[in-house]
Amino acid sequence: MPNIQFDADGRLKHFIGIEGLPHHLLFKILDTAQTFINPVDHTIQKVPILRGKTVFNLFFEPSTRTRTTFELAAKRLSADVVNFNMESSSNKKGESLTDLLHNLEAMYADLFVVRHHQSGAAYFIAQHLSPQTRLINAGDGQHEHPTQAMLDMYTIRHYKHDFVPLKVAIVGDIFHSRVARSQIYALSTLGVAEIRVICPKTLSPVGIESMGVKRYHDLTAGLKNVDVVIMLRLQYERMTSALLPSECEYFRCYGLTHKALEHAAKDAIVMHPGPINRGVEIASSVVDSPRAVILQQVSFGIAVRMAVMAMILGLYEQ
Amino acid sequence: MPNIQFDADGRLKHFIGIEGLPHHLLFKILDTAQTFINPVDHTIQKVPILRGKTVFNLFFEPSTRTRTTFELAAKRLSADVVNFNMESSSNKKGESLTDLLHNLEAMYADLFVVRHHQSGAAYFIAQHLSPQTRLINAGDGQHEHPTQAMLDMYTIRHYKHDFVPLKVAIVGDIFHSRVARSQIYALSTLGVAEIRVICPKTLSPVGIESMGVKRYHDLTAGLKNVDVVIMLRLQYERMTSALLPSECEYFRCYGLTHKALEHAAKDAIVMHPGPINRGVEIASSVVDSPRAVILQQVSFGIAVRMAVMAMILGLYEQ
Amino acid sequence: MPNIQFDADGRLKHFIGIEGLPHHLLFKILDTAQTFINPVDHTIQKVPILRGKTVFNLFFEPSTRTRTTFELAAKRLSADVVNFNMESSSNKKGESLTDLLHNLEAMYADLFVVRHHQSGAAYFIAQHLSPQTRLINAGDGQHEHPTQAMLDMYTIRHYKHDFVPLKVAIVGDIFHSRVARSQIYALSTLGVAEIRVICPKTLSPVGIESMGVKRYHDLTAGLKNVDVVIMLRLQYERMTSALLPSECEYFRCYGLTHKALEHAAKDAIVMHPGPINRGVEIASSVVDSPRAVILQQVSFGIAVRMAVMAMILGLYEQ
Repeated sequence: MPNIQFDADGRLKHFIGIEGLPHHLLFKILDTAQTFINPVDHTIQKVPILRGKTVFNLFFEPSTRTRTTFELAAKRLSADVVNFNMESSSNKKGESLTDLLHNLEAMYADLFVVRHHQSGAAYFIAQHLSPQTRLINAGDGQHEHPTQAMLDMYTIRHYKHDFVPLKVAIVGDIFHSRVARSQIYALSTLGVAEIRVICPKTLSPVGIESMGVKRYHDLTAGLKNVDVVIMLRLQYERMTSALLPSECEYFRCYGLTHKALEHAAKDAIVMHPGPINRGVEIASSVVDSPRAVILQQVSFGIAVRMAVMAMILGLYEQ
Repeated sequence: MPNIQFDADGRLKHFIGIEGLPHHLLFKILDTAQTFINPVDHTIQKVPILRGKTVFNLFFEPSTRTRTTFELAAKRLSADVVNFNMESSSNKKGESLTDLLHNLEAMYADLFVVRHHQSGAAYFIAQHLSPQTRLINAGDGQHEHPTQAMLDMYTIRHYKHDFVPLKVAIVGDIFHSRVARSQIYALSTLGVAEIRVICPKTLSPVGIESMGVKRYHDLTAGLKNVDVVIMLRLQYERMTSALLPSECEYFRCYGLTHKALEHAAKDAIVMHPGPINRGVEIASSVVDSPRAVILQQVSFGIAVRMAVMAMILGLYEQ
Repeated sequence: MPNIQFDADGRLKHFIGIEGLPHHLLFKILDTAQTFINPVDHTIQKVPILRGKTVFNLFFEPSTRTRTTFELAAKRLSADVVNFNMESSSNKKGESLTDLLHNLEAMYADLFVVRHHQSGAAYFIAQHLSPQTRLINAGDGQHEHPTQAMLDMYTIRHYKHDFVPLKVAIVGDIFHSRVARSQIYALSTLGVAEIRVICPKTLSPVGIESMGVKRYHDLTAGLKNVDVVIMLRLQYERMTSALLPSECEYFRCYGLTHKALEHAAKDAIVMHPGPINRGVEIASSVVDSPRAVILQQVSFGIAVRMAVMAMILGLYEQ
């Protein structure tokens, strides 16, 4: 990912991936997000920062939930939000994607939030935008999902305060996960002591060690003494494919139970990007235990998305 | 319905059903609704009462119209509204309903407006909410539809001023109607002189007399001297089932015509929750006559829903 | 189109068609639109002119793009907007269209934006509205699409300043085009020197000369010395019908290329209502040349729709 994310003055312009973003910028996003959360009751006030701005949600790959979090973040900033239905529009009418984008820009769109099933789609679209339009990648193929990674970093900082001494394990289908990729870049840049991935051999990416990551194929070995456990969602399409024997078998080997969690540090937290498959990648009792900070991730996600929106629209210090 | 509708201080917290709500609370809802309506031109101003609050419409049973009335009520109160598409989300991804609800709560949802095809669904959901989240039942199975009943009460008070001397007849498919149930509870609590139900024997609920209601199977006998006639919508699925011989036959026996209406009090009003089947449960000429106050019900409905929203979110005196 | 568009004082009340609208009113719309556009950076500020008003988009014929432009225009004026899904509602439940409309009016709808596949639908609906409700026709069958024509006039005035000396050519499927009809009425009323239509004989309307239009079946002859070239979109259903031999053949004869454009005036502008079929009715290189003002049309469209909304809701001088 080259510097298309930055403008000529080195300010963040698009938010496409964590790869290549400097340490101070990640911290600035976390700090900005924090200003939106009331420290006493943890609520988020509606603020007029993006009043008069227009945010388009362009979800080529449907995701009601993620789209809603961006919609809510934009509305909390007082922006107008349009959920543009990509399926009923665009290329059905023989129009090219870039023509559609330029049309939406001409409607005074200030920001596109883009999700796409193809890796690189967010980058491709950003390349074709006019100078005044901004883009946030809400997940592209198996490439990156940067706002998810940043809300995860927010959650880790909230509970652990300092990144440097931490051992973090990411568990599950690392191979297909844009979430894992973004998390690894973020954790790396923020300087955690150790990043581990724990996965079956069939779901293990080639050459991941070059990202400074330790690979484990045994859950309890991988969890040993970690401070943070990040579970990944097991996609249904994996379960039914040749990559995995069965749901049951997966849970037996890689499902997070209280027993497995005993190998982690005593105060380890458990994270998950949702939606959860209870009994597939994680035991129900772990989800419902105080170790799990899964719902807090969702709440922090609103603030983090507000921060990124405000920053790239130039309305916040970077 | 136990006291889950109330908080520890006896304040209304959820609005699930009319059953068990005290007289003074029903009046408070009506009085609060009245404050939103300009007495001169009957318009409703936009007010900032719910600014910064987020209302989620969760319609498991689709109803564009009812959902729109809640959306408009929330927007008049300056809330942000999310119409969450239940069909494209939730359990398709293997996630439980309660996990989905907790996720939406974590997005700072303040209020869920829930419609569901199963009786008791609103109650079930309310039981699983966090203490700070509120719920309004927008119709659950054959149980209750309390905001509909309250807008009906508002309409009756608007035209008749006092509930006590009134004779009210509800006509149609009493057996399957959540609207009728809620109306009977409300009319009972508000102390009307007489509640009658008029219906074919096949659509007559067992033991309804225990609710203090008189049952009629003959339309003209049932309408005799009533002050208010509430027609129910005949659902298509009833027409084609074994419960009714045919649309024509139903109209001949239970359709409200001007001739039938002559048996009611001279100044009787005619109500209907909509959408209307002209020529099935009600003659077109009655719908278009000044006796019908059906569109006024719709308008009052916006104010009543605003009142309930404002009250349960604790921003209005109860 | 009779005077249903005007109230008793001769003020514009509905915006159904350009036919019959006086010269000064068209200018007033253009002038009002201009006040919304910042002359320096061409942005449009959000203004509170329609705060508390409710706009319903009623699109019987789906069009995500056009609907979005009206949604954005309404939101820039601070109105509340409801995108009412006509397919999932209305006559499926056995309810008549007029009953549905009266229901939506009773929800305090101030303005309906209506698109319909049948010519005359907007007129029909306007006839059935209550005195306080307003309507904008967003395209009805092959009748009119008046806001499109007005944004085209805005674009022409922006680039050419004066209508009187202009020669304007409209190229394509004139026969089926509501856009062409509205444009011809507008150009006529605004007094351009010459209006030409250029089309295959199979897509040529009978008796169009009575509208004061010159007909051409040869592209280069028709483009000779024109100041404005308005291309029409070729609908897919035409391409596959007996009316046209093939896409390729159509492009060879009527597709706008740089070569064809050489016959027009040196500073001629090229317009298109979108979405564009590149290589069908217009060459890609023409779309991307500085002669094309197609995206500017989209931007001006927001301001023009704001102007019409503000004017017919009585909040702006006419």
